[in-house]
Amino acid sequence: MQKNPSSVNILGGGLAGSLMAVFMAQKGYQVQVYERRPDMRKNQLDGGRSINLALSVRGMYALEQTGMYDEIMELAIPMYGRMMHARDATLNFQSYSKDEKTCIYSVSRAELNMRLMSLSESLPGVTYHFEQKCEDVEFDTGKVWMRDLNSGEKYLAPADISMACDGAFSAVRYDMQKTPRFNFSQHYLEHGYKELTIPPGPDGSFQMEKNALHIWPRGSFMMIALPNLDGSFTCTLFFPYKGEYGFDNLDTEEKVMAFFQKEFPDAVPLIPDLLEDFFTNPTSSLVTIRCFPWVYEDKVALMGDASHAIVPFFGQGMNAAFEDCTVMSAFVDLCQPDFEEVFERYQVERKVNAEAIADMALENFIEMRDSVGNPEFLFRKEVEHRLERHFPDYVSRYELVSFSRIPYAEAYQRGLINQQILDELLEGIDSVEEVDMEKAGRLIEEKLSKFN
Amino acid sequence: MQKNPSSVNILGGGLAGSLMAVFMAQKGYQVQVYERRPDMRKNQLDGGRSINLALSVRGMYALEQTGMYDEIMELAIPMYGRMMHARDATLNFQSYSKDEKTCIYSVSRAELNMRLMSLSESLPGVTYHFEQKCEDVEFDTGKVWMRDLNSGEKYLAPADISMACDGAFSAVRYDMQKTPRFNFSQHYLEHGYKELTIPPGPDGSFQMEKNALHIWPRGSFMMIALPNLDGSFTCTLFFPYKGEYGFDNLDTEEKVMAFFQKEFPDAVPLIPDLLEDFFTNPTSSLVTIRCFPWVYEDKVALMGDASHAIVPFFGQGMNAAFEDCTVMSAFVDLCQPDFEEVFERYQVERKVNAEAIADMALENFIEMRDSVGNPEFLFRKEVEHRLERHFPDYVSRYELVSFSRIPYAEAYQRGLINQQILDELLEGIDSVEEVDMEKAGRLIEEKLSKFN
Repeated sequence: MQKNPSSVNILGGGLAGSLMAVFMAQKGYQVQVYERRPDMRKNQLDGGRSINLALSVRGMYALEQTGMYDEIMELAIPMYGRMMHARDATLNFQSYSKDEKTCIYSVSRAELNMRLMSLSESLPGVTYHFEQKCEDVEFDTGKVWMRDLNSGEKYLAPADISMACDGAFSAVRYDMQKTPRFNFSQHYLEHGYKELTIPPGPDGSFQMEKNALHIWPRGSFMMIALPNLDGSFTCTLFFPYKGEYGFDNLDTEEKVMAFFQKEFPDAVPLIPDLLEDFFTNPTSSLVTIRCFPWVYEDKVALMGDASHAIVPFFGQGMNAAFEDCTVMSAFVDLCQPDFEEVFERYQVERKVNAEAIADMALENFIEMRDSVGNPEFLFRKEVEHRLERHFPDYVSRYELVSFSRIPYAEAYQRGLINQQILDELLEGIDSVEEVDMEKAGRLIEEKLSKFN
Repeated sequence: MQKNPSSVNILGGGLAGSLMAVFMAQKGYQVQVYERRPDMRKNQLDGGRSINLALSVRGMYALEQTGMYDEIMELAIPMYGRMMHARDATLNFQSYSKDEKTCIYSVSRAELNMRLMSLSESLPGVTYHFEQKCEDVEFDTGKVWMRDLNSGEKYLAPADISMACDGAFSAVRYDMQKTPRFNFSQHYLEHGYKELTIPPGPDGSFQMEKNALHIWPRGSFMMIALPNLDGSFTCTLFFPYKGEYGFDNLDTEEKVMAFFQKEFPDAVPLIPDLLEDFFTNPTSSLVTIRCFPWVYEDKVALMGDASHAIVPFFGQGMNAAFEDCTVMSAFVDLCQPDFEEVFERYQVERKVNAEAIADMALENFIEMRDSVGNPEFLFRKEVEHRLERHFPDYVSRYELVSFSRIPYAEAYQRGLINQQILDELLEGIDSVEEVDMEKAGRLIEEKLSKFN
C-alpha cells in the first residue's frame, strides 16, 4: 500500500477527467491531468463526436457536489419531453415526467468540457498537460509511461495512483486487457450516426420548439435533434451502415435528397447545408464496452467510458461517468489513504450499475426509433402516466433513470416489474379509463412497495 | 484483389498453423510459417499448457484430407467413455456412444505439434521461421511486420495473404481490435486449472484403466485424467481461483494434502509428486474468445483459437480449429485466386458454428463436474441411450459433436430438441422400462426426422 498518497495522475481531460480533477483537488491532492489532444480552448472543435449531450439528475448532482452547478447550468437548455415528427410532419409531444416541470438539459459537449477544464485548472494543485499520450502502463509497479507528442520525449507520470478517464478507446484499458483474467468486450451496433445542422432562424431564434428533444422515429432508424444556445439544433441521423436503407447505399446527392424528402420532409427546408453536411461529416460508430475488473490494486482505476462506454439512447453516458466521479469521491473521503480499499469499493458499487445502464441504453434505441411512433406503445405510456399520478410507489423507468439517483441496477429491476404490472392491467382493455385501478393498487403494493 | 497469389504467410506454428501449412502447400502455395517460440523439436516442453488433448471425428477428418492420418494416429490412445471416480473410490464407466467401439482419442499436444511440423516442413514450399514475432499488421495494405527475436531486425512478411493461427492471445487479432467496428470479447471462467502427473506403473503399465477419460466430479470443481503413450496420465484439476474451496486458499502443504485426501483419495497414492507438482506447476486460466469479423478483405483471416478460443470441456478446441482448416481449404479450392471470396465464405460458414461450440463447451463444464455424478442425470442418460438404440433419428448431442461432422450449430439445436423430448418422456417415470416408446417414436418423427 502506498503511504498517504498526496498526488494523482488523471489520464484524459474530457468530461470525466476534468470533473474528477476537481473532486481530487478539492480534497487537497496534487492533480496532473494528461490529455492526448491539443487544448480545445485554443483550437476549437472536435469533428465527429456527438456535439450535444443530455444532462440529468445524476450529472447535476455531481456538479452540485463540486460547487460548480450554477456556472455549468448557464450552458444548459431544458427539454421537457420528446417532440415526435411523423412522416406527414404531424407533431406529437410526450412529456418525460408526470410532473411537467421536470426536464433534462441539452448541453454542448465542447462548451461543457472547456468550462470544466477552466474551472478545474483554476483550483490549486491542478495542472493540465496537453498533447501527452499514454504509451504503456506497468501494472506491477503502477508506473505510467507518457510521451510528449511535441518533443517526442518519453517520461513517467509522477504519481503512484492513476485514474484513467481516457474514454471508450482507453489506452490504459488496452494494456489492462493483457493482465491476467481481464474480462472485456467491445460490441458495435449495426447502426452508425451522422450529424447535420439546423442553423438559427432570424435573430438567433429557434426554428423548432426549443425546449424539447426532437425525434423522427422511423422503425429501423431515426433522426433526433437537440437545441443549442445559439438557436441552432444539432441533428443526428442513426442509420444502418449496410443494406438498401443504409449509409453504404446513400452514395449520391440524388439518393440522399430523395431519402430525406421521403423520411424527414419537415426537416429538409431547415437544413440548408444538408448535402454538404452529409458528405463531409464522418459516419461514426456506436460501441458498448464492458470489462472487469476496473481497477488494478491501489494503482489504476478505469472511470467513465473507459470502463463502460454505452450507446447514447438513454442520454446517460455523461451522467453515468459523472456518477462514477461522485462515488469515487465519496470512497476517497471514506477510505483514504487506503486506495486499494477506495478502488475496490468503487468497482463493486459501480460495475452492476454500469451493466444495467448499458443494457437499458441498448433497449432504449428500440423504444426511440420504433416504439415511440407505435400506438400500442403510446397507449401503454398513457396508462403508465395514470399509474404514476395515482400511486407514488409506481415510478416509470425513464423517471428512475433520469430524474432520480436510485442505482441503475435497481431502476432496471423496477422497470421489469413495471412491465409485468402493465402487462396484467392492459390485458383485454382498449382505453385508459378501463384500467382496473383497484387491481393496479394491489399489484403495486405487492410488487413495488418494498423498494421504498 | 490480388492477382493469382502464389504464397501465403501463416502466423503461428501451433496445431492449426502447421495443419494449414500442409493444406496450402499441397495446393502448390509457397508457405512461410512464423512462430514466436523456439522450435519445440529442439528444446522440448512448454509448461503450463494443457498437455493432452482429445482428438475426435472432425479433427481426424482434417488429417485424412491431408493424407497424414496414419502417421498421426500412431500417437493416439482410444478412450471409449468416462470413468467416474466417486469420493469413496467407487468406479462407474459411461460409454460415449451407443456403439461401444466408438471412441475419442487422447493425444499429446507437444508430440502432435512436433509431428505436424515435421510432416509439413517435409513438403515442397513450406518454411518455418522460429522466434519471429508479429509486431504490427497494416490492414489497409495487408502488410505484416515481423521482428526476428534473435537479431532484433524488423522486416515485412513477403506474402499478401496472411492466415493468423496465433492462438487465443493472437497478436494479429489485438491489432484487428482497433479496426472499425470489430466486435470482440474475452471472458474468463472463475476456475483455473493445474496439471499433475500420475507416472507409469512397473514396466510402463497404466495404473488406472487406460482406455477411458477419468473424471472425479465434485459439483463445483473436478479433476480429470487422460492417458499418455508412456503409461502415465496427465491429471488436470479444474478449481475456482478464489473462495474457501479455491486455489488462493490451498496455500500450505497440509491444506493441499488434506484437500486431496478428502476429495480424491484414490488418486493420492498414484501421484507421488503431488505437493511438488501442485506448488511448482502454474495455475492457468480458462478463456472464451469471441470476435467478428474474422477476416479483413482478401488480406488476413483469423483461424482456430485466434478467432474462437473455447474452454476445454467438450474436447473440441483442436477439432474445431482443424475443421476451420478443412473449411478454409475447401473454399480455397473452390474460389482461388479470389481470396476475398474465400475468406468471406470461410467466416460465414464458421462463425455460427464457433459460437455454438463455445457455448456447448461452457455448458459441458457443468455436465462434467456436476451432472455426471448426479443420479437424475445418469437416469436421463440411460433413457437417452435407449432412444438412440431404438431410433436412428435420435442422436445424442455428444455423439453429434464428437462422432459426426454435422455443423456444431445444428448439433446445438438438435441437442435442445433432444432435451424437450426427454423432458416429455421422463415426466412421472422412474425407470428406463417405463418409457413410452410409442410416444417417443412420435416425438422423434415429429421433431427430429427433418434433420435427416
